[in-house]
Amino acid sequence: MTQLIRTRVTEMLQIEHPIVQGGMMWVAQPELVAAVSNAGGLGIMTALTFGDAKGLEQAIARTRQLTDKPFGVNVTFLPTLVPKDYGSLIDVIAGEGIPVVETAGRNPEPWLDRIKKGGALVIHKCTAVRYAKKAESIGCDIISIDGFECAGHPGEDDVTSLILAPLAASGLKVPVIASGGFGDGRGLAAALALGADGINMGTRFMATEESPVHPAVKQKLVEMSETETILLLRSLKNTERVWRNALAERVAAMEREGAGIEQLAPLISGKNGLRLLSEGDLEAGLLPVGQSVGLIEDIPPVAELIERTVTEAHDILATRLPSLVVS
Amino acid sequence: MTQLIRTRVTEMLQIEHPIVQGGMMWVAQPELVAAVSNAGGLGIMTALTFGDAKGLEQAIARTRQLTDKPFGVNVTFLPTLVPKDYGSLIDVIAGEGIPVVETAGRNPEPWLDRIKKGGALVIHKCTAVRYAKKAESIGCDIISIDGFECAGHPGEDDVTSLILAPLAASGLKVPVIASGGFGDGRGLAAALALGADGINMGTRFMATEESPVHPAVKQKLVEMSETETILLLRSLKNTERVWRNALAERVAAMEREGAGIEQLAPLISGKNGLRLLSEGDLEAGLLPVGQSVGLIEDIPPVAELIERTVTEAHDILATRLPSLVVS
Repeated sequence: MTQLIRTRVTEMLQIEHPIVQGGMMWVAQPELVAAVSNAGGLGIMTALTFGDAKGLEQAIARTRQLTDKPFGVNVTFLPTLVPKDYGSLIDVIAGEGIPVVETAGRNPEPWLDRIKKGGALVIHKCTAVRYAKKAESIGCDIISIDGFECAGHPGEDDVTSLILAPLAASGLKVPVIASGGFGDGRGLAAALALGADGINMGTRFMATEESPVHPAVKQKLVEMSETETILLLRSLKNTERVWRNALAERVAAMEREGAGIEQLAPLISGKNGLRLLSEGDLEAGLLPVGQSVGLIEDIPPVAELIERTVTEAHDILATRLPSLVVS
Repeated sequence: MTQLIRTRVTEMLQIEHPIVQGGMMWVAQPELVAAVSNAGGLGIMTALTFGDAKGLEQAIARTRQLTDKPFGVNVTFLPTLVPKDYGSLIDVIAGEGIPVVETAGRNPEPWLDRIKKGGALVIHKCTAVRYAKKAESIGCDIISIDGFECAGHPGEDDVTSLILAPLAASGLKVPVIASGGFGDGRGLAAALALGADGINMGTRFMATEESPVHPAVKQKLVEMSETETILLLRSLKNTERVWRNALAERVAAMEREGAGIEQLAPLISGKNGLRLLSEGDLEAGLLPVGQSVGLIEDIPPVAELIERTVTEAHDILATRLPSLVVS
């Protein structure tokens, strides 16, 4: 028997389960994205992973070979010195008729018409209620709100999902996807209780069979406890949550001593992170992980993870919680 | 119609609703404690508020004039240079037959026999799963686990309630009270979904009619957003979450410049905090508040707050969540 939880997010995105896979840079390769969508969630790839428009086109084509279900593309507007060619990426997305685009990093307003020309629904990912309201006001269709717990960039406010999700849900008309700290069916049920219409899981999908990261990284995620993450780069107002390996401790110490981006850049480079992810050299770079890493105990196939998550949430919503109620 | 949510916590503590009021230093006066217990929650006073054994005896007597429902006493073992006379406080608690004792600050093992002699159940309040497991192993009856969101002392791990509550609930046999970030019925429902058997609310009860804090403080709590708290005293490994007023900013700046306890002590003294609370001089001292402050929109009587919280949670558990499920 298939258990189903239906929300505005499952309706709008035309997916079976209210579970969105975080568009993790480099990690969200076609195999992982397709596995999530095939299992009834929404897989999301990150456009910047593939370098340029041609790379993105190829990744989309590859994903379409692997699934005929809807999947999304994330476009993160980075604060880089050399501006990326977002226009050509967005034109690929619109031209390919990608049904869901997730924007992040800053206000997507300048690109919104061009994105929507392809018919896509826009999920805007942000880290504060004030940004969520702005995104709604300019026409974003869904807000994915990222709590303090999340991997990667939690923003500078340090407000947690337990607070952000209900405030966003009651402050907005559009549906809210709770993100940051979610890794199982209990979290999905809690998010729905808080008023969200679904969850985003990133870190949890990194530890699946279809995830392209090195087996040593997956194993480390299983072993890692919820206390082993650290926030770096607050001194640059570009805070990032990563695994607290020796390199992360070193970066933190350098920040405390006043190091600037010039000194930090060689350590925090994406190339180092990629070596960690692909070669399994756990001290080579920084590994973005969220506090949900404490909930990870195995490396299942994506379909099993999603099935388990939904079944657990379903059991909580349909059986366990109602059994507590006496009227 | 009275809505009831029954859990192991309501059974064990013999209360109507799974809502425990945080034993806020100075704020949890007999009137507030009694109001919470009269409304079916568990009111808790903090022994150290009343100075000595005689003061505590009087506070207990006063509370008993105001309620015949169970209430608790919190004993926080502080890292003070001059040791408090915990023995005499605990003897009062045991002698008075107080049914619930909440311990905090450090491992209560040395005092546990003496506390339990009076027949009390012991709730141990802590900030990490490893401490919770230790507390269970020495015979504590319930664990109240405090997430990063909480007012006052969240510990040094910065793990949020969304992660701590499910990990504690699945890692322990004894019931778990989720604490830190809870202020309404959505939070209560979410805590139950995560596997907790109840919630602790502190900050939320500060903004009630029966709370003894100055009206200007209550009004400020209504106005305050979830982004207006700050963590101080991490440099002393005694992190505290407070309202980010000018004084808090000053303390933070001093910490960044390497100030020690000698320089900080005059600013962070309890006397200053008490002036803020009692006189409403909002810059006089530090005000412990949790991120749940973002959820506070009014100053209701305690009974109305508890009724509203339970009714909202009941509606979520009995109606809204089951309606999402399709089997």
